[in-house]
Amino acid sequence: MRQAGGEIVVADTRPGLIEITDRVAAWVAGQGMRDGLLTLFCRHTSASLLIQENAAPAARRDLEAWIARVAPESDAYEHDDEGPDDMPAHLRAVLTGVHLSIPLAGGRLVLGTWQGIYLCEHRRRPHRRTIALHLIGE
Amino acid sequence: MRQAGGEIVVADTRPGLIEITDRVAAWVAGQGMRDGLLTLFCRHTSASLLIQENAAPAARRDLEAWIARVAPESDAYEHDDEGPDDMPAHLRAVLTGVHLSIPLAGGRLVLGTWQGIYLCEHRRRPHRRTIALHLIGE
Amino acid sequence: MRQAGGEIVVADTRPGLIEITDRVAAWVAGQGMRDGLLTLFCRHTSASLLIQENAAPAARRDLEAWIARVAPESDAYEHDDEGPDDMPAHLRAVLTGVHLSIPLAGGRLVLGTWQGIYLCEHRRRPHRRTIALHLIGE
Repeated sequence: MRQAGGEIVVADTRPGLIEITDRVAAWVAGQGMRDGLLTLFCRHTSASLLIQENAAPAARRDLEAWIARVAPESDAYEHDDEGPDDMPAHLRAVLTGVHLSIPLAGGRLVLGTWQGIYLCEHRRRPHRRTIALHLIGE
Repeated sequence: MRQAGGEIVVADTRPGLIEITDRVAAWVAGQGMRDGLLTLFCRHTSASLLIQENAAPAARRDLEAWIARVAPESDAYEHDDEGPDDMPAHLRAVLTGVHLSIPLAGGRLVLGTWQGIYLCEHRRRPHRRTIALHLIGE
Repeated sequence: MRQAGGEIVVADTRPGLIEITDRVAAWVAGQGMRDGLLTLFCRHTSASLLIQENAAPAARRDLEAWIARVAPESDAYEHDDEGPDDMPAHLRAVLTGVHLSIPLAGGRLVLGTWQGIYLCEHRRRPHRRTIALHLIGE
């Protein structure tokens, strides 16, 4: 059994879902393991990670709109140091979560046919986001 | 240290929460490990996994109704290729999540007394759902 | 490769977010590992775990208020065996989740600068809450 650590940097984000499936799969392939467990961890409180439908752009837009409805911009927040998109960004990160665990089997992540891995940028202006990776297996 | 992989198939789902605690515990017991980490991963974008109260059927019904309120059927969605329950199913999967990590200690999952593991089917018609399992430990 | 198990007990909770970052980091430091994967698991259905902004008290209050809006107290619940805060507590635990996975790299959890680990108490009266810990690495 062995382990590997790494990170993926998304240097210049735009708001919404940014697919990182290929970058994650490439990193995993580079570790040369066949079976194991991959963990992704987003090191931010206003960006997050999720797994969703990777085929229909309309589904991605509906998902972004739903997240914005559940945790809306509003003047009801006490914390607004960085503007009106500050607090909703934190709430949207809680709603969607900052870590993912995906088994590796037979050399491939066990993602279903329609599952993609996404970084969610919840702030309006571009950010540099770092996702820590950990793989254990053999 | 060693690892094991497997899967649980729920062949013919109905909408709502389907308890799989016993099936998961049986698979874990079959691996003959005492301590470790179990990961469950739902390979779908319109079904999900969660841990909740396993005693009161009323709590399960309230939870199903709440999920439906937070991510309702509506004519506001752009993506409806497979009908009105298509997009809400994706949203409900994001709300609840598709992976679970549960430590194993002394031969048992560390679930609390009232915690059960559930597959959530968010589509109306029956589906065949696959949950990948990964256990590492000794 | 080796693993370690443990638990953190929060003996006398109050409603809302309770930061446990320092206790978690101290337990991890005591295991003497440099690289690995930490898993936290909350053994309850009316308390949960989350990672959020650890600097601004106002952000914590906004987060608590948002959780209460998304899963409100209401007379619409069928399950109220233990009072009006019973069912919302279960819903809030589902909203936020009961497990966290955080890689360890170079002797430190890869938490971002502003990320803290929180236990969320969703019941009004004080409870004794147990969080199981699992660390694998070397």
